[in-house]
Amino acid sequence: MNFEIVDYQNHAVILIDQRKLPAEELYVKLTTLNDVAEAIRNMTVRGAPAIGVTAAFGMALAAHISNAANIDSFRKDMKHASELLNATRPTAVNLKWALNEIQRLLDDHATAPVETLKKLIHDRAHEIKQHDIAANKAMGQFGQELFQSGDAVLTHCNAGALATAGYGTALGVIYAAVENGKKISVFADETRPVLQGARLTAWELLKNNIPTTVICDNMAASLMAKGKITKIIVGADRIAANGDTANKIGTYSVAVNAKYHGIPFYVAAPLSTIDIHTTNGAAIPIEERSGDEIRKLGNTQLTPLDVNVYNPSFDVTPNELITAIITEKGVIRPSFKDGIAKLFAR
Amino acid sequence: MNFEIVDYQNHAVILIDQRKLPAEELYVKLTTLNDVAEAIRNMTVRGAPAIGVTAAFGMALAAHISNAANIDSFRKDMKHASELLNATRPTAVNLKWALNEIQRLLDDHATAPVETLKKLIHDRAHEIKQHDIAANKAMGQFGQELFQSGDAVLTHCNAGALATAGYGTALGVIYAAVENGKKISVFADETRPVLQGARLTAWELLKNNIPTTVICDNMAASLMAKGKITKIIVGADRIAANGDTANKIGTYSVAVNAKYHGIPFYVAAPLSTIDIHTTNGAAIPIEERSGDEIRKLGNTQLTPLDVNVYNPSFDVTPNELITAIITEKGVIRPSFKDGIAKLFAR
Repeated sequence: MNFEIVDYQNHAVILIDQRKLPAEELYVKLTTLNDVAEAIRNMTVRGAPAIGVTAAFGMALAAHISNAANIDSFRKDMKHASELLNATRPTAVNLKWALNEIQRLLDDHATAPVETLKKLIHDRAHEIKQHDIAANKAMGQFGQELFQSGDAVLTHCNAGALATAGYGTALGVIYAAVENGKKISVFADETRPVLQGARLTAWELLKNNIPTTVICDNMAASLMAKGKITKIIVGADRIAANGDTANKIGTYSVAVNAKYHGIPFYVAAPLSTIDIHTTNGAAIPIEERSGDEIRKLGNTQLTPLDVNVYNPSFDVTPNELITAIITEKGVIRPSFKDGIAKLFAR
Repeated sequence: MNFEIVDYQNHAVILIDQRKLPAEELYVKLTTLNDVAEAIRNMTVRGAPAIGVTAAFGMALAAHISNAANIDSFRKDMKHASELLNATRPTAVNLKWALNEIQRLLDDHATAPVETLKKLIHDRAHEIKQHDIAANKAMGQFGQELFQSGDAVLTHCNAGALATAGYGTALGVIYAAVENGKKISVFADETRPVLQGARLTAWELLKNNIPTTVICDNMAASLMAKGKITKIIVGADRIAANGDTANKIGTYSVAVNAKYHGIPFYVAAPLSTIDIHTTNGAAIPIEERSGDEIRKLGNTQLTPLDVNVYNPSFDVTPNELITAIITEKGVIRPSFKDGIAKLFAR
């Protein structure tokens, strides 16, 4: 990829500002913990794996900034930072996963001096980033075997390089298929209200020379009926132990339509997105965001300003609508409960 | 309704500019045939029945403007006007229906003098408008019997007063239910890309004090899964002889989801929307509009400007997904082919 999504350099978290794409390719440099939390909250960075990596770098930044004189005080600073970051967005589980990784490091080095811990957290955050990219590439190799030359693939939201530390989950599978010489074209749902498909998926697919057509979310079913979509692949924000998958609002509608039209529906996500402590989809918390995301777009008023709106960011696709879940450890097919349990038992 | 959708006064076609709603309530006065054709094309007026009435008034205007000295020359002027209006939008059949009504008038009065014909066309256009409002009210009465107090009704696009000469088709049924003392709340799909739901349906429902919640198109399925939607009602742009229904893009996706969730899916449309000469949905021409409707919104760029987009204005919902079709002559249930044939045999 010829762009960077999230990095940590010279004690600053660096993010491509995803709210500005595709009109502008702008990078922001964050040097306070509050700025990192706000960047997650306001979707400067979004996408479950990218949020996880950003949180890890946020912890590295918090560790650097801490002027704790002893371990107890440092642990308190880290706990405060972790809680602040954890509260930014409730649905994506990678955020929690990354924060737990840092906590585990602190637990594993209970007697290490503060400066050593700072170094360990810094290095672990960079490892989490590299691990995410490696996981995406492995996922891509497993996943691409499910695709053939000539496939016209529908995707929803952005589960690409921009949703991760690099390469992408759902789009990573498409990139891997293309790298393996397969001709793939993509239909990108624009993904209202934040338009991650129109803005981000279209932008990165064009950067990678993948033939791309943007459609409004409500057009996908009609393309399926016409036989123009051969496969569907999406990412995930949290996968429950039984395979139920929370992903960007609208994914469920795509899945229902896929079932009705007999089109394979794949989910691509790293193990860090699977939450084995969540039994099923009903237990996944669903974030609701400001109604103004629907009422206005830029300076343009879309609805009467006093109208009631409903704006959930995610929905849950039940496991029976999912053909397979693609992970960096291989492809899981139903029963997902068994497949997931086996993966985590290793 | 405390607003006017389409009228003809002092030799001018008067339209509420639906592109400006809900931010502005602006009326335009059109005094040339080209302006009327352009207003249909650029969606100053939209909605199949409203387009039909506008076309009828366009013919009245063309008749007034004509300085034909004899009947043959006048007939030529009328033929030219009819062809120009007919070419504006291909899917809605009410346009053709209204133009045919005027043509029938000319045929029925083959020897009438030009001035008489002008008067007849003028009066017939006003009758078409009144007929549309009366049809909607009758439709409302038949349709409202299918709704109960407490229903939460999903609608897509705008099939309200603004889509007709007044009162509305799908929303007319809701207005009638409310007038009959039933408590109805509405979920309005925003309806990308032109946002008729967010802009127009929300605007007129609020004007009529109906509790309304605007959602993005991709959220409807998730609400259905949660049991928050009890019934669905939409309008139509053309209904084939077998009941297959062309309506605003996205209707089909709603219908598939309705089937999956076991929710009744109703279509409300006047007989002028039923095209008994079109055997089934596959034969209905589907308009594709400019990709810039998806690429930009006002001055805001949504996608990379060079990305390919697909922008069909309508899709076809096959008859097997429709619970009932509500017309001004009563409610048709499957088999629609028989029901429609019976209605037209009367």
